[in-house]
Amino acid sequence: MNYYVCLHQEGVSSIPKFIEKAFANKYNVVATSINANMLPFEAHESDPTYPATILSASDWNSKVLFTLSDVNVDSPNAKLREHAKEVLMRDVTWAEHLQNMGHVMVRLRGPENENLASIVLAKTKDDFPLGRWLIQVPITNPELATFEHRKDATAEEVSEAESNDPWNWWNNLRMVAKHSTKLKVVVELNDADRPCKETVRRWLGEPIEAIIIPSSLFVRNRSNYCVLKKEWQIIVGHFISVGANIIISTNPNDKALCQYADYVNKLINENCDKHAQKSYENMLEIPLQPLCENLDSYTYEVFEKDPVKYRLYQDAVQAALLDRVSAAEAKTKLTVVMLLGGGRGPLARAVFNAAELSKRKVRLYIIEKNPNAIRTLSNMVKMLWADKDVHIFSKDMRDFSPPELADIMVSELLGSFGDNELSPECLDGALKLLKPDGISIPYKSTSYINPLMSTVLHQNVCQALPTESAFDYGYVTLLKNIYHIDEPQALFDFEHPNRAENIDNTRCKAISFQVKKDCVLHGIGGYFDTHLYKDICLSINPLTHTPGMFSWFPMFFPTRPRTLREGQTISIKFWRCVDATKVWYEWQVVNSPDDWEHHNTGGTGYNMRL
Amino acid sequence: MNYYVCLHQEGVSSIPKFIEKAFANKYNVVATSINANMLPFEAHESDPTYPATILSASDWNSKVLFTLSDVNVDSPNAKLREHAKEVLMRDVTWAEHLQNMGHVMVRLRGPENENLASIVLAKTKDDFPLGRWLIQVPITNPELATFEHRKDATAEEVSEAESNDPWNWWNNLRMVAKHSTKLKVVVELNDADRPCKETVRRWLGEPIEAIIIPSSLFVRNRSNYCVLKKEWQIIVGHFISVGANIIISTNPNDKALCQYADYVNKLINENCDKHAQKSYENMLEIPLQPLCENLDSYTYEVFEKDPVKYRLYQDAVQAALLDRVSAAEAKTKLTVVMLLGGGRGPLARAVFNAAELSKRKVRLYIIEKNPNAIRTLSNMVKMLWADKDVHIFSKDMRDFSPPELADIMVSELLGSFGDNELSPECLDGALKLLKPDGISIPYKSTSYINPLMSTVLHQNVCQALPTESAFDYGYVTLLKNIYHIDEPQALFDFEHPNRAENIDNTRCKAISFQVKKDCVLHGIGGYFDTHLYKDICLSINPLTHTPGMFSWFPMFFPTRPRTLREGQTISIKFWRCVDATKVWYEWQVVNSPDDWEHHNTGGTGYNMRL
Repeated sequence: MNYYVCLHQEGVSSIPKFIEKAFANKYNVVATSINANMLPFEAHESDPTYPATILSASDWNSKVLFTLSDVNVDSPNAKLREHAKEVLMRDVTWAEHLQNMGHVMVRLRGPENENLASIVLAKTKDDFPLGRWLIQVPITNPELATFEHRKDATAEEVSEAESNDPWNWWNNLRMVAKHSTKLKVVVELNDADRPCKETVRRWLGEPIEAIIIPSSLFVRNRSNYCVLKKEWQIIVGHFISVGANIIISTNPNDKALCQYADYVNKLINENCDKHAQKSYENMLEIPLQPLCENLDSYTYEVFEKDPVKYRLYQDAVQAALLDRVSAAEAKTKLTVVMLLGGGRGPLARAVFNAAELSKRKVRLYIIEKNPNAIRTLSNMVKMLWADKDVHIFSKDMRDFSPPELADIMVSELLGSFGDNELSPECLDGALKLLKPDGISIPYKSTSYINPLMSTVLHQNVCQALPTESAFDYGYVTLLKNIYHIDEPQALFDFEHPNRAENIDNTRCKAISFQVKKDCVLHGIGGYFDTHLYKDICLSINPLTHTPGMFSWFPMFFPTRPRTLREGQTISIKFWRCVDATKVWYEWQVVNSPDDWEHHNTGGTGYNMRL
Repeated sequence: MNYYVCLHQEGVSSIPKFIEKAFANKYNVVATSINANMLPFEAHESDPTYPATILSASDWNSKVLFTLSDVNVDSPNAKLREHAKEVLMRDVTWAEHLQNMGHVMVRLRGPENENLASIVLAKTKDDFPLGRWLIQVPITNPELATFEHRKDATAEEVSEAESNDPWNWWNNLRMVAKHSTKLKVVVELNDADRPCKETVRRWLGEPIEAIIIPSSLFVRNRSNYCVLKKEWQIIVGHFISVGANIIISTNPNDKALCQYADYVNKLINENCDKHAQKSYENMLEIPLQPLCENLDSYTYEVFEKDPVKYRLYQDAVQAALLDRVSAAEAKTKLTVVMLLGGGRGPLARAVFNAAELSKRKVRLYIIEKNPNAIRTLSNMVKMLWADKDVHIFSKDMRDFSPPELADIMVSELLGSFGDNELSPECLDGALKLLKPDGISIPYKSTSYINPLMSTVLHQNVCQALPTESAFDYGYVTLLKNIYHIDEPQALFDFEHPNRAENIDNTRCKAISFQVKKDCVLHGIGGYFDTHLYKDICLSINPLTHTPGMFSWFPMFFPTRPRTLREGQTISIKFWRCVDATKVWYEWQVVNSPDDWEHHNTGGTGYNMRL
């Protein structure tokens, strides 16, 4: 991931020289007024401030970020408003001329942005050439900062300023602009007021382009270097971790430019994510259907690389073997293990390791329905396990007639939402393979959900599929630019073996969540945990995630975006439905008086084929 | 552009070792039978030939190209046919398992490929994971080669073999597979029969993945190095120039592997295109509409970089100045030059240069309707041309009232198809600016068309726009993977100034073209040339292209693909239509008895707004 560190100054007399100075001080982008070298710019002035040819098109495009004139197109005064529109449109037209893909930045000054929003909407339509609109928003209401110096402010004044939250300024604008992907937010920090944790977290669910750090935020450390205080370091680090670029805002006489850049680059290095799954972040994938489609070799390979999962399976089998066969019987008593879905052998290896470590005798039956995986498995039996008591069956476990019953069934049929790869149906179908006192590893799985705000995921849903059905799918995605509106709660449980007379794998449940801060609901996060044996667990629930395990990304069930208010309670209802040929989920936000859209009715979108 | 050089051998006993050997000899891909190390592979054999785990998924994907079993799924014998299908599907399934994005190669053995085509069609649908299908086709009918050794072959036999053209085998298959972008052709050269020029040229219009060079094509030069004969070098060079990769086919005991690779890499270096416009090749762009939309700075910059165009304009203005003003009058007689569309100044510079070189007095009026360009132009007047007699007018030339009439009007309003940026309408509108004996530079422009085969352009058209309207657009594109079915011929002429009483810029004309070889018509190429002054011309007609000039790419007017036969005549009819608000083209292939689709009726697709 490539970050930029941008130097922002106003009142520069020459853009090329400003770029030279910034680049010499280790910045790689500059930001300045589009009317640079002519401040204040007169609207009636028809002479150019500078010709297009002072920079090449590619330099305009890649090195310069324009701030538009700070005029109020939403002024209550009609004359001022019209004049402001004229100035703004002149700026935008000039920016479009110079930068066929470039960025312009405009600052929100308060809650009223209706006219600005409609200009942004018109200019971010697909057929407009202009690049991104960067909406600059103070992280907290700047009024709040002024109270620090005003002893006379009443409690009401403070509370009113607090309720006038700049996030709402942005949210109203973004709603009018229809969540356009060309719209990004630039969050402006200020030294007077440090935002609370939840405020920062909420911004992480927005499409952050950059944060602006005013130079006044820097302090000198003992070695006289410019640094940020610990609390600010943490805040800036959070923004960097979701990919925010950095804009340093200073005055033209500042002499510490290079120190800021050095310091910020150090923060970027410390906080940017470098893990191998980087490219999956925020990407939506349609969940696998391993029951009706055969996995390819690449998918097996990715699964096999998980360093944690198979180790925990091995521990679980080992513990089960020790519990079922006493030390006295170790030499004589054979434990029949049935592996349901052998893949390319990683679980078989875990079983053999467990047998060796526990010094217990094991006979392993591997059932695998993918004939391609069988080719590799057969070869492993020949080359690696010639001395083992191992038998391969190229079968669907639901149709398999075993030569004998199993003491232990081992399977890894769980999807990101637990039961969404149909483990309940598969394991119920395999019940006939198990001895009456036989056990299943895993023996229980639970799904979890919570409400999420994520503009980026919402935009990706809108582009993922024909829009009509995109909101009826559940997606697998590595959650990154998200805000957890509330913590995950348990949804559905499944236990194995299920010896009930009439097995019912349908479910329905509604869960309530509290809204801690004004925000937008874009969808529902889905997670699971599973108990393998006794207290040996795997979890992708963010509250209890198994360290180092990467085999499963969370799920995301989209909803239509709606603004939620602090203190509000929302209830999310989920169904697991089953018919003769498929299993599917339906979901709905239910809030009297108005229930929101009911998603995936009848399983017409995402469904799992039996 | 990254080419690969692939080593193809059969009968390899270990794929990893084969890769090692090939890479040590400077190849970066290998091709071999999917049933490597088990030849002949028995269909009833259920044991694996090798497990998936001998290579990582990314190695399977990037380093190996599988040849499928050479079985005939179109055999007239039902039993053989069914067996062949079974074998082929088993191979394909295994390839899909190993390579989630990889390539498989299958060889055509004759004209009958119906069953193969329907398998390919099913497997190249969008939702199938397999990568590309490479269809291996001999460049000429292999039967022809056998006649070289057979004295008893009759003239009929030879002519029949000639008419059984392997290109038709490919064409039939590709038509069934609906021009899928996942289908690529691999052309196999052979040492017995060298193809004629036209045969090679036609393949360049196909989606070429690679060519196969059998090692037997190499000869030893005086230094005992393996090289290709001059004639083969040229043929291979043509393929490389359109991006074909190279597959060297040898037997396992060949000792000259590294020499082939070295030699082929040298050919790639000599023949691959490295020009700056590389990224535009085969890309379709909607033509600019500079009359109704203002150009951005980037577009101006690209135009200004042309090293040839403005030099020829300068020559033309210089010649005109010398003709209109004798040496005796040089000091006294002022020539009024009117520049229609000044942009960011390149033509103005050409006019000033011409005045200086010809030592003639010039007054220059620059008319430019783009206010953004005016900003830069005004600055140039101030900074560069303060001592010149130059006047800028921010106006549409059609609405401009000049302070005096012009001796010379200079403009560059021509698009890729000559009149498609509405130069006739603009120059007719500016006629009132010109003295009765005044001249226009340019004074004449002519459009040209010819029929083209280009699978890649056809595929791009299908993906360019909603399919309904995509075939009603003309596109600007740098033609690359194309076959000129016949040479371009002149279509429409426009002369300036046009002093006719009733100006009529509508046109209609039909032109006949000869088909030299069986091929597919995918569309019509569009070009133009223009006379600036006397015999000073600019041309993008391929037959007369101005050397070094890159300002204009050709146009491409798509048609629905249809197979044409050698010797056939086709007639292409073109209309230029005008109404109150727009100008547009319509086109149609007219061949009694059946006229093909009439494109862009009423200008509902591509049109130029007045």
